[in-house]
Amino acid sequence: MCNHAIITHVTSTVRSRQLGRRAMLGGALAGAALLASPVRPSGARRQLAPRAGEVFDLTHALSAAFPVYPGYTPFSATVTSTIDGIGSLSRQVTLEEHVGTHVDAPAHFIGDGDDVSEIPAGRLVAPLAVIDISARARDDADATVQPDDILAWEDEHGELPAGAFVAMSSGWDRRADDPDAYLNIGEDGLLHFPAWSPSAAAFLIEERDIVGVGVDTISMDNTTSPFFESHVILLGAGRYGVENLAALGEVPAAGATIVVGAPRFVGGSGGPARVLAIT
Amino acid sequence: MCNHAIITHVTSTVRSRQLGRRAMLGGALAGAALLASPVRPSGARRQLAPRAGEVFDLTHALSAAFPVYPGYTPFSATVTSTIDGIGSLSRQVTLEEHVGTHVDAPAHFIGDGDDVSEIPAGRLVAPLAVIDISARARDDADATVQPDDILAWEDEHGELPAGAFVAMSSGWDRRADDPDAYLNIGEDGLLHFPAWSPSAAAFLIEERDIVGVGVDTISMDNTTSPFFESHVILLGAGRYGVENLAALGEVPAAGATIVVGAPRFVGGSGGPARVLAIT
Repeated sequence: MCNHAIITHVTSTVRSRQLGRRAMLGGALAGAALLASPVRPSGARRQLAPRAGEVFDLTHALSAAFPVYPGYTPFSATVTSTIDGIGSLSRQVTLEEHVGTHVDAPAHFIGDGDDVSEIPAGRLVAPLAVIDISARARDDADATVQPDDILAWEDEHGELPAGAFVAMSSGWDRRADDPDAYLNIGEDGLLHFPAWSPSAAAFLIEERDIVGVGVDTISMDNTTSPFFESHVILLGAGRYGVENLAALGEVPAAGATIVVGAPRFVGGSGGPARVLAIT
Repeated sequence: MCNHAIITHVTSTVRSRQLGRRAMLGGALAGAALLASPVRPSGARRQLAPRAGEVFDLTHALSAAFPVYPGYTPFSATVTSTIDGIGSLSRQVTLEEHVGTHVDAPAHFIGDGDDVSEIPAGRLVAPLAVIDISARARDDADATVQPDDILAWEDEHGELPAGAFVAMSSGWDRRADDPDAYLNIGEDGLLHFPAWSPSAAAFLIEERDIVGVGVDTISMDNTTSPFFESHVILLGAGRYGVENLAALGEVPAAGATIVVGAPRFVGGSGGPARVLAIT
């Protein structure tokens, strides 16, 4: 029987290897060293069925190479245990709460704002509206989403659904492998990238019903709003932001559901998130 | 007009405060210091519409207080910027990849296994099956999910759907606020908590089609499988695990969709995840 065969294999693998250091409580973690040659049933992956609908990954892979906003420290990771050592790989990760594809919680800018662990789970699942300004962004690195862009989206798709998450798609995510191109520091010493205009942010808060706003660039504000006006309008109204989104150009402009996997760091101003869109 | 009022308010707030240090590139991050008294439109939160369906948060809040597996370092965070200082709050977080509600990627135990950034997004969204062994766990801290528990679930709900995520609900998550009760170290020096039996793990791999397995305890293996047999069977077959899940007792046993917000740490053996269930 398959089950029995696996158990027998595991057991014999365990028995055939020397017990490593047993200093760990109960020797359990150390015991894992016995299993460096694991069972991998052949063909197991072929059994996986495709899902109905499609899942889009809106998240950049995060490593020390990912560009960071000036002033922040890049992501780093240190291996703390190995399979050859105690039997399992683990790492200690050090990250600024605003690296990679990440959430800005209200607490990032607002003294009494919700921290990232306090954003209700129900607001992390939302109808996704993608506002595409990539054509304009090709000619103007400082392009911003304007209220008219939202109205143009609504002309095509109807009014923004209640509780929507509204994301700017500028095509900038394709630069993320090249930090210089992504940060795009000009001769003026400033970063140049597309973002939200404060007037569009204010339109969403005052005239529509949204849970949050996203960008496929490093910040919701660019040089045209140097005092972070869009952040303050959005986070000040209890909404959250997501920065450094990926692949928005591949997602339907309307009809998908976004799931923002914000970390539940207590007291956190934000944090790296897995962000998916589901159709 | 509301929009104009907000912009005027923001602008006047900006102008009424002293510009902080402008050492940052472009002065932008420093400029945020101007916005410590933000706009918070009254009643803005009341506009948020309830969603159709329900979102369950299966994620424990993560802080230094959260119990860790012996050998791992607890979560920590250090404030790197403040609203009173440069205008925005950020922290540098240090975390072991296996703290809090977290994913075990195949690479945690398997030398050539997928790291956490390589788990395909499509496998992070899955039909959720909850196997409740809480009644047995009340009498036996070492209780494990057996193949018969899976068959009993199927008697009630039909065969596990293709690509399912199968979670053990033992009620142990309610102990997480009390690390001693959660780790439950006995007089034998071992941790005692409910987990998967290797035979049930093998049944899922060989006889069913699953993407991953979860527990509401600190590990998928307990004292009854001291050599991490369930880990090896599951991760060795390219599946992932999620440990320290919360609130599984509140989720329907069948019919919900789980979204596992695994972090995309390149090379990661796992990492803290936001895990939601949607009905």
